Amino acid sequence: MSTYVGESAVTVLGLGPMGRALAGAFLDAGLRVTVWNRTPGRDRELLDRGAASAASPAEAVAASPLTVVCVVNYDAADAVLRQDPVTDALKGRTVVNLTADTPARARDTGDWATAHGIRYLDGAIMTPTTTIGTSDAVFIHSGPEELYREHRPVLDALGGTHTHLGEDIGRAAAYDIALLDIFWTAMAGYAHALAVARAEGITARELVPFAQGIGAILPPLFEEFAGDVDDGTYSGELNPITSGVSTMAHIVEASESHGIEAGVIRAAEGLARRVIALGHGTDGFMRVTELLGRHLR
Amino acid sequence: MSTYVGESAVTVLGLGPMGRALAGAFLDAGLRVTVWNRTPGRDRELLDRGAASAASPAEAVAASPLTVVCVVNYDAADAVLRQDPVTDALKGRTVVNLTADTPARARDTGDWATAHGIRYLDGAIMTPTTTIGTSDAVFIHSGPEELYREHRPVLDALGGTHTHLGEDIGRAAAYDIALLDIFWTAMAGYAHALAVARAEGITARELVPFAQGIGAILPPLFEEFAGDVDDGTYSGELNPITSGVSTMAHIVEASESHGIEAGVIRAAEGLARRVIALGHGTDGFMRVTELLGRHLR
Repeated sequence: MSTYVGESAVTVLGLGPMGRALAGAFLDAGLRVTVWNRTPGRDRELLDRGAASAASPAEAVAASPLTVVCVVNYDAADAVLRQDPVTDALKGRTVVNLTADTPARARDTGDWATAHGIRYLDGAIMTPTTTIGTSDAVFIHSGPEELYREHRPVLDALGGTHTHLGEDIGRAAAYDIALLDIFWTAMAGYAHALAVARAEGITARELVPFAQGIGAILPPLFEEFAGDVDDGTYSGELNPITSGVSTMAHIVEASESHGIEAGVIRAAEGLARRVIALGHGTDGFMRVTELLGRHLR
Repeated sequence: MSTYVGESAVTVLGLGPMGRALAGAFLDAGLRVTVWNRTPGRDRELLDRGAASAASPAEAVAASPLTVVCVVNYDAADAVLRQDPVTDALKGRTVVNLTADTPARARDTGDWATAHGIRYLDGAIMTPTTTIGTSDAVFIHSGPEELYREHRPVLDALGGTHTHLGEDIGRAAAYDIALLDIFWTAMAGYAHALAVARAEGITARELVPFAQGIGAILPPLFEEFAGDVDDGTYSGELNPITSGVSTMAHIVEASESHGIEAGVIRAAEGLARRVIALGHGTDGFMRVTELLGRHLR
């Protein structure tokens, strides 16, 4: 059992795989950890490691100055936090909400916290469960900077890098949404590519060294194109969008020739074709960003 | 001017950005290079560097034992190659077609080549124009292995790594399609993410360090999931598809709340929801590969 008290006590609400990883990292760092989960029985290993189990969420949040919430979405978070005994117990205490949802929901919860005298930070975890407690973990936070600084020592027990993105409480969720947009779209592309490859007699293991090569060229291209998008310059000299759309049409054709639907890449192709129809065929593909943002003339 | 003759002479048909890069790398390696392009005037710099200009494609292919073709697609390649004077001149010579198109078109061109006594390899270039002639270039090839070995010394002048994927003439195109599927889908995700970020007051330059972090976790995940897909095991223990679909729904909601259409991620979400509806909600996202391939029961 730990000998830490006071500021070094933390409550974790939500014991899915990520919540359990967070509570485990706090325990490893020697903090006094109280846990609660809606469905009982998820806390056994944590209790063996020294965590305290609370009988209710109100009892759980009363046990620590800081409560970390990690549940499936804000509907689930609200169902726990926005009941009078819990809201009352949180008054004057701090909530760090690591639940993923939209920026609008984060801001709504920020308003609720302010109205009830609850100190509130919103955050997001950008790396898989297995990184928690290691140097590979990446956390982003938003909300009052003073509050962030106050709790940073406890958050550091989770390992990895922590970045405060600004005072707008919705900012971490906005980064989270944008980054997960990249992640899940890329994964959809990978799943589709493996289906097409299999139809052509190519195993995933055969394709993967080359797929990793494609993965490796993305980060430098992300950097190069970020400048283009911020500056509104979309040079297509080396790779015009007309060339990209020709490739996307080949992918659709090869996919559908095997009876494999191609809805994801078809949607991307459609955006590119609209950019071309608007007279920007010599620009690069990233011009679609302006089409999506309705800035394209 | 070069003093090389015979086997070390090469013809390049197509002088778009990639064709010019290929011809330039051959010149840098000291080969005797003959070039031709449908639209005149693209060869000026190459001629200054020692290339020979041909007056017609038939004259161009007759100048070398090996012709490398790099045009926009196979319609364009056919328009050059499948005219009698060119087909006649190619008899007994070798074509390496680095034009991108579908596996079906590559196989059709392979049949045409066989019917006309033309030795034929199909290939694809997996890296940008700027990598040509450097160690970063990645080329894949398919077709008769003997023929590949014979011309490998000349192809090596293009730099980078060359891999022979098999005798099936469509195999390089199949890899190409699958890999470009990953690339263009990921780029569509990135463009959309930047549009959503901008609507949330986040610049592309602010997002890019985190976007690069997402890019960096893709290659190891690609490897992990390749095993799952080949083996038909789709553990969702740490990240079930129900969790992924919840995230995708947040992305759609945040995007559309700013009037930004979300067709690409909506299509990905739809696939995930169908997998869940078929009773596989506790599996991982890569189970969509089986849905796409119509193997899902």
